[in-house]
Amino acid sequence: MENIFTDEYFMKKALQEAEMAFERDEIPVGAVVVVNNQVIARSHNLTELLNDVTAHAEMQAITSAANFLGGKYLKDCTLYVTLEPCQMCAGALYWSQISRIVFGASDAKRGYRTLGTQLHPKTEVKLGVLENECAVLIKNFFLKKR
Amino acid sequence: MENIFTDEYFMKKALQEAEMAFERDEIPVGAVVVVNNQVIARSHNLTELLNDVTAHAEMQAITSAANFLGGKYLKDCTLYVTLEPCQMCAGALYWSQISRIVFGASDAKRGYRTLGTQLHPKTEVKLGVLENECAVLIKNFFLKKR
Repeated sequence: MENIFTDEYFMKKALQEAEMAFERDEIPVGAVVVVNNQVIARSHNLTELLNDVTAHAEMQAITSAANFLGGKYLKDCTLYVTLEPCQMCAGALYWSQISRIVFGASDAKRGYRTLGTQLHPKTEVKLGVLENECAVLIKNFFLKKR
Repeated sequence: MENIFTDEYFMKKALQEAEMAFERDEIPVGAVVVVNNQVIARSHNLTELLNDVTAHAEMQAITSAANFLGGKYLKDCTLYVTLEPCQMCAGALYWSQISRIVFGASDAKRGYRTLGTQLHPKTEVKLGVLENECAVLIKNFFLKKR
């Protein structure tokens, strides 16, 4: 039997969250946290609705996953997020000691790699999963905003 | 008449918050946000109580100040924090476009300056205000923990 729980499978869940952000007129970024093929947290960017620059999808997902686990470290967890994390989110992921980060679209300007933010040495990163779908959603959002 | 609203004055308020964290067995870091000599947000580190790595004093202060102001940008605001912000908090401060950051003790290992986190170009920084008091509190905390 084929394993349906691929990185693409979970990135699609994150994309669904990003679409919910788009519908709410938020910059469309979505995230899920997965442990043992189970989604334990899902979130999307809510900076406008909450009037809060800290309300990025990843930040909410970290808080929510820790709440589910009953502990603040996200060992054995994977974060799927549609856009490369920023400095803030990468800094939060550092503290969480998360095992794995999978992101879709790169952010050449504000992404953590460009800005040199340090992740935890235990954290593995995979990028470019459903990259085009993730990027197109954000591009369409800003085209609509013009 | 002498102006009582000095940086030391507001850093003492942040120190009081740090002391509350100490009493709660949290790493003792406190913060206040000030606009026009008025404290609009106060907070201390709650990562243990909330089981949440994102619950640093600064993160809560940013959220709380934005809530008070009814807008997510902290223009004309000063954050006083007893310890140099980490990558996550500096990244959040970047997004907030805060006017000024004043911190007490430096954090040579995890501080944003060592790790090269970018602040907003509009943000001014002053460091070393009540440095010794801020540092001693943290040192005592870790001595107690041994």
